[in-house]
Amino acid sequence: MRFLQKLGLQHLVLNKKDKRLASTIKMMVGSKPFNIALYRLAITPSGLQESTSNGFQISYERLEFLGDAVLGAVVADYLYLKYPYRNEGFLTETRSKLVNREVLHTVGMKIGLKKLFSQELDGRSFTQSKSLYGDMLEALVGAIYLDKGYNFTRKFILERLLIHFDIQEAVNTTINYKSKIIEWGQKENKAVHYKLLGVTGNQRLKEFSVALEIDGEEIAKGTGSNKKKAEQNASENACKVLNIAD
Amino acid sequence: MRFLQKLGLQHLVLNKKDKRLASTIKMMVGSKPFNIALYRLAITPSGLQESTSNGFQISYERLEFLGDAVLGAVVADYLYLKYPYRNEGFLTETRSKLVNREVLHTVGMKIGLKKLFSQELDGRSFTQSKSLYGDMLEALVGAIYLDKGYNFTRKFILERLLIHFDIQEAVNTTINYKSKIIEWGQKENKAVHYKLLGVTGNQRLKEFSVALEIDGEEIAKGTGSNKKKAEQNASENACKVLNIAD
Repeated sequence: MRFLQKLGLQHLVLNKKDKRLASTIKMMVGSKPFNIALYRLAITPSGLQESTSNGFQISYERLEFLGDAVLGAVVADYLYLKYPYRNEGFLTETRSKLVNREVLHTVGMKIGLKKLFSQELDGRSFTQSKSLYGDMLEALVGAIYLDKGYNFTRKFILERLLIHFDIQEAVNTTINYKSKIIEWGQKENKAVHYKLLGVTGNQRLKEFSVALEIDGEEIAKGTGSNKKKAEQNASENACKVLNIAD
Repeated sequence: MRFLQKLGLQHLVLNKKDKRLASTIKMMVGSKPFNIALYRLAITPSGLQESTSNGFQISYERLEFLGDAVLGAVVADYLYLKYPYRNEGFLTETRSKLVNREVLHTVGMKIGLKKLFSQELDGRSFTQSKSLYGDMLEALVGAIYLDKGYNFTRKFILERLLIHFDIQEAVNTTINYKSKIIEWGQKENKAVHYKLLGVTGNQRLKEFSVALEIDGEEIAKGTGSNKKKAEQNASENACKVLNIAD
C-alpha cells in the first residue's frame, strides 16, 4: 500500500466505498488523499462505530483533539499577521469567536460534511449531537494534517475554511477602544498619549487612574484594576467625547 | 536587509547587541536567526519596554499568543502519535499537565532564557512575574515559527524542549484504568469485554451500569453517568481485583 502511495496509485487497491470517499475528499480538500483510512476515521462518530472486541472505540475523537490544536495554531497565525496593531486580548477573543462549536458546525455543513456523512450512514439511524459537523470538521483537519502535513493543512484552512467565517463580524463585536483612538489619531495626525495619574488601593486591590491626552490636551480619564484596563476605559470615554462611532 | 538575509549575510548589518543576541539564539535554537527583531521582541516583557509615542506597547504578548498555539499543536501531534491507544481525554489532560505556566517557566530557565534576559537587562531593574520565562518561552516559539516555519519549530520543540518535560510523570498521574486493563489483557492474552447491564434514571440523570468480563467471566462492575465513565469505573474495580498496580 505504501509503495502504491508513493507511486500515486493507491486508488488501484481501494474498494468501491473508499473510492467514493476519496473522490469526495479530493473535491473538499483539493488534493487526493494518501491514507484514506484517516479520512474514514474522521467521519466516524463514536456512537456509530461498534467497539472493537478489546473495548476500544474506533472513532474520530482523537483526531478531533489533534485537529482542534492545528486549527487553533493556523487561526492564531492568520490573526497575528492580519492585525499587526491589535493586542493579544483582541487576538484571543477574536479567535475564540471564530473557532467555537456553533461556528464550526455551520462551516462543516457548508463544506459538505453533512452530505458526506449521510452518504456514509447509508440509511442507518444515528442520533447526532448539536456540534456533530463541527467535531467532524476538526477531525478532518487532524486527518489532513497527518496525511499532508502542516503547510498543506494551513493552506486548506486559509483558502477553504476561512472564507466561510464571518471574520469582520467577529472583529466588530470585539471592540478595542484603545485601538480605535490610536487609529483615529493616526488618521487625523494627532498625538495620542496616555498619562498615568496615579495608583490607589493596596497590594491586592489596586486602582489605576489614567488620562488620555490628544496633542497634549487631556480629553478623557479612565480607571481600572490595571494600567491596560484603565487605558481601555479612558479610550472608551474619549470615543464618546470625540464622537467616534462603534 | 531582506537581500542580505537571502544571502545569509544578515549578520553583517547587525549592531553589537544584536550580534550577541543572534549568537545566543543560534546556540539555543540550533540555527542562525533570519529576522533578529522577532527574537528581540520575544525577550521583551511589557513592563520593560516603554510605550511608543502612540500608546502601543512593543512587547512579547502577541508573540506569546502565537507561540502558545503552535506549542499546543506540536505537543498534540507528539502525544497523538506516541499514545495511539489512549483516548482524547487522556491526551487533553496529559497535554495540559505538560504545557502549563509552571512547567514552561522551568523549561524556559533550563534552556537559558534567564541568563539571556539578565544579559539583556544589563543592570536595569525589573519586577518579574512568576511565569516570566514560561511566557518568554512561548513568545520564543512564536518568533521561531514566524522566522523559520512550522516544521523547524516542531523539530525545535521535539528535540530541544520536550527533553526537559517529565512526560512519564505527567502520564503516570493521568491514570486511565480502561487502558490499563486492556494492556493487561493483551499481555496476558485474555479477552477483555465490557457488557452494558442497563441504564436507569430519566433523560436528564442517567446511570449506566457495566460489567467487565475477562474470557467471558464477569470480574467487576461499574457505574457512571455515561457508558465511558461506567467502563472506567468497572476497570478501576477490576484493577483492584486483578491486583494491577497503579
